[in-house]
Amino acid sequence: MTGVNIIKVGGKVVETPATLASLLDTLAGMSGPVVLVHGGGRSATAMASRLGVETVMVDGRRVTDASMLEVVTMVYGGKVNKAIVAGLQARGVNALGLTGADMNLIVSDQRLPNPVDYGFVGDPREVNTDALLMLLQAGIMPVVAPLTHDGAGNMLNTNADTMAATLACAAAGLAEVTLTFCFEKPGVLANPDDDSSVIARIDRGVYETMKREGTVAGGMIPKLDNAFKALEAGVKRVVITAADNLGGGTVVTL
Amino acid sequence: MTGVNIIKVGGKVVETPATLASLLDTLAGMSGPVVLVHGGGRSATAMASRLGVETVMVDGRRVTDASMLEVVTMVYGGKVNKAIVAGLQARGVNALGLTGADMNLIVSDQRLPNPVDYGFVGDPREVNTDALLMLLQAGIMPVVAPLTHDGAGNMLNTNADTMAATLACAAAGLAEVTLTFCFEKPGVLANPDDDSSVIARIDRGVYETMKREGTVAGGMIPKLDNAFKALEAGVKRVVITAADNLGGGTVVTL
Repeated sequence: MTGVNIIKVGGKVVETPATLASLLDTLAGMSGPVVLVHGGGRSATAMASRLGVETVMVDGRRVTDASMLEVVTMVYGGKVNKAIVAGLQARGVNALGLTGADMNLIVSDQRLPNPVDYGFVGDPREVNTDALLMLLQAGIMPVVAPLTHDGAGNMLNTNADTMAATLACAAAGLAEVTLTFCFEKPGVLANPDDDSSVIARIDRGVYETMKREGTVAGGMIPKLDNAFKALEAGVKRVVITAADNLGGGTVVTL
Repeated sequence: MTGVNIIKVGGKVVETPATLASLLDTLAGMSGPVVLVHGGGRSATAMASRLGVETVMVDGRRVTDASMLEVVTMVYGGKVNKAIVAGLQARGVNALGLTGADMNLIVSDQRLPNPVDYGFVGDPREVNTDALLMLLQAGIMPVVAPLTHDGAGNMLNTNADTMAATLACAAAGLAEVTLTFCFEKPGVLANPDDDSSVIARIDRGVYETMKREGTVAGGMIPKLDNAFKALEAGVKRVVITAADNLGGGTVVTL
């Protein structure tokens, strides 16, 4: 297999009909194997609220008790996932919605209850790369919801960025993998107030210089640290961009 | 491929933890390719009620407006489907949850609004038998939720019995197919008040005699009519039984 594109898109893009349609058009125009990993947090919070389930976030992560697990399983695995799958099928893309439980794609360990008890939240342990390969070779586009399972019958709420990186690292043994993280900006910006100041390419040396000079700071640092981790695990390149800028953005390489 | 078992189990069984566990144990013990098609109507009605969405049934079928479509997509495709998939994975069965949109498994026509406007309800038009075959040959157990799509981006609520029969007829060209409909009784009963009076085998001649003599009546007649339709379309045998009596029940043959 030639290059595989693994693309993570956050909830905001896939939950808004206009931006979702635009994303699906872009995906339908891409050549070669693509894996889409999506979020859906805003929809989960809205549905939880309608059901009288309180949303509790700690350090930006959702605390997932049994009631919240039911909500995210319905919203991520049902509502959001099937809207994407049906939309891709309408564009001639043979999409398949998956959670980590389906085909045993990703097994996770439930996170330990210390220091924070996040409940039914999982950290990926193992990927079924054979399943992933079979689907990509059959011309199918996996559409992966941010849910995994523990192998003992429980679904687990799982971070979509982490799942995308985990799948990318697993696929890196099989193909040249490009891992794309979409966020709200068109790329890593030299000037945070100027969206046209996208830095085209960052390698380890450039990154160290930028950190020293303060060009990158805040939330971008863990993003880039994760990018370098994926690269060290064999992913060919990591791209940080906006969903409406696929093909552009900042390329991160070793 | 040798024999394929396509088993339809109603919502009541998969929505109750004890009967679900028992069903999954049974499925895990079966040899050869199995496709499970499940319902989930009681859960959908309960979730709709929690969300303030009114359930309207006409002739036993759910009227599915946009709000109800959201509910059934979440409940059938998310909550119920993933509970089954995770439960099968825990038993060593490599299950994959599907709707008709996933892998384009079943495309439906939205039902015409006359004489009854059921809204987003579909009648299956076409099966992606290649996809089904690929999964079964890979040792995967498809777990199919009662949802299809129209090929134009919309999910459609779809009768689980009809989906099971549609899949069985499509697979009949590829393998010897046994189609099993589970309902609340262990089989077709000679005496409706005696669960031990299961008729082991019904062919067309026996059926005509039973109808004349009034041994079968009411809701069993459309069930058996559908069974004969499937047989005429090439399905090898149809079984009518209870979920806790798989392997037993009434065998229907031409």
